[in-house]
Amino acid sequence: MQYFQDLILELDKFWAENGCVITQPYDTEVGAGTFYPSTFLRALDKKPWRTAYVAPSRRPADGRYGENPYRFQYYFQYQVILKPNPSDVQELYLQSLYRLGIDPNKHDIRFVEDNWESPTLGAWGLGWEVWLDGMEITQFTYFQQVGGIDVFPVTAEITYGLERIALYLQGKNHAFDLEYAPPPITGAPPVLMGDIRRDFEWQHSDYNFNGVNKDLQRQNFENYEAEANRLLASGHVYPGYEFVMRASHCFNLLDASGSISHAERQAYIGRVRKIAAKAAQAYVDHENSKEARQEVQK
Amino acid sequence: MQYFQDLILELDKFWAENGCVITQPYDTEVGAGTFYPSTFLRALDKKPWRTAYVAPSRRPADGRYGENPYRFQYYFQYQVILKPNPSDVQELYLQSLYRLGIDPNKHDIRFVEDNWESPTLGAWGLGWEVWLDGMEITQFTYFQQVGGIDVFPVTAEITYGLERIALYLQGKNHAFDLEYAPPPITGAPPVLMGDIRRDFEWQHSDYNFNGVNKDLQRQNFENYEAEANRLLASGHVYPGYEFVMRASHCFNLLDASGSISHAERQAYIGRVRKIAAKAAQAYVDHENSKEARQEVQK
Repeated sequence: MQYFQDLILELDKFWAENGCVITQPYDTEVGAGTFYPSTFLRALDKKPWRTAYVAPSRRPADGRYGENPYRFQYYFQYQVILKPNPSDVQELYLQSLYRLGIDPNKHDIRFVEDNWESPTLGAWGLGWEVWLDGMEITQFTYFQQVGGIDVFPVTAEITYGLERIALYLQGKNHAFDLEYAPPPITGAPPVLMGDIRRDFEWQHSDYNFNGVNKDLQRQNFENYEAEANRLLASGHVYPGYEFVMRASHCFNLLDASGSISHAERQAYIGRVRKIAAKAAQAYVDHENSKEARQEVQK
Repeated sequence: MQYFQDLILELDKFWAENGCVITQPYDTEVGAGTFYPSTFLRALDKKPWRTAYVAPSRRPADGRYGENPYRFQYYFQYQVILKPNPSDVQELYLQSLYRLGIDPNKHDIRFVEDNWESPTLGAWGLGWEVWLDGMEITQFTYFQQVGGIDVFPVTAEITYGLERIALYLQGKNHAFDLEYAPPPITGAPPVLMGDIRRDFEWQHSDYNFNGVNKDLQRQNFENYEAEANRLLASGHVYPGYEFVMRASHCFNLLDASGSISHAERQAYIGRVRKIAAKAAQAYVDHENSKEARQEVQK
């Protein structure tokens, strides 16, 4: 595992060997990989589904101008979804660590109970954090409810913190010091994560905290919510759900920029949860009507 | 190359071996990989840079409800950027085809002169299309101008059409019939591209042509343009450039939904070009000021 990008390639290979569709990052900003339709929507039907993907995640409130070694407003999750949840899921996970060069027999690896809840997505699950020699590197969740709907079969979600695992593997102290990729030309130094992200992180931190156009983003939230409602009502599940993701990110921007009071905050969360639930129900209805049509055709 | 996803993994491995940073798809909708900051902005400075990435591309006007085997409003480009352009770039490309299982000695591979221009990005370059047994599979470009600025050293851009290459390799007639990934559980069939994209393509085609809220998208364009101007003026190159990408996609949605006249169309293109040029200049200014600061520190 010489470079950061090798970590991703190795996880892609490992999970592809284990039946996963390797999907690509979504072209809409999200706070976590759980928001992706390939997790949020696909967890709702009864069909087997396995996927793995990098989820570039935006957490506007977590920006620290690149000065904190672990905390960023933009970072990579690596998301694995297994439905139905296999009985050997922990064993599979430990094998994946082994493939990355972490021998579970030589390290203190702990599964610490930690149930998970997303108030905006109306989702919760039983779960564990995984600690490697005292540092949290992964979250495991068995979804019980998604978009306010009880789900069965149960989906297992594994979310790796890629930067943290890489810090460990490369023995670095700051994510920007990670060696991301080989030298672009002979004689040059390797490409560091900081070469790619330093200016991006500083500028976005400053934008999130001081540069957000609050009136515009409040208006955007209203518009996105209305578009989600309109499109979901007409059965446009995927375009409609994209407006749910946009509304959620818009709320995160408003929150980071100090634009909303505590009471308003709860109201915004409730509004996102409501359109997320509507998207979940629209997806279930759509899948059921497809199945009914297929039955008729038989 | 058994599955579609193996094609991506193999290209990632090949270009990583050749000094590329494997970056992840951007979380903003774009019409082509050229829009990504890792191409558009990075082509503007004088530092060596090599990157490769999948660019999920949105072309609202190209939607055909999934009925056309080759034409979609959402598809994957695979983008390679090499700066300075290596003298053996065509040879490298042929090696990459060989790695995918296409032996250049056994096929009719032609480089057909075809210069490239992006009116919205204020960019153009000398280039070739690559034809494999009569089907266009790749576009080569040597950038001459980006964001209205003459660039040196010259960047080589290689854009593979992944679905087309996979159709060829798997001997299928429709992109939805491509085998994307292995069976998720024993005994199940492989996952087809259609299993992942069919509903998405139909619903987005319908949205693009019949469901766009035209007044809202016109207002969004005005807002995105204003935000780009405001943020670029205050040196927030990356957050500002994101609004350029958003404005461009917004124009594409207005165009596909038949919301703008021919005369308006030209005006919109000019407006996107203007903020793209402003982003390019802001990036160059920022890089120059960084260099000046580093000089002072020496």
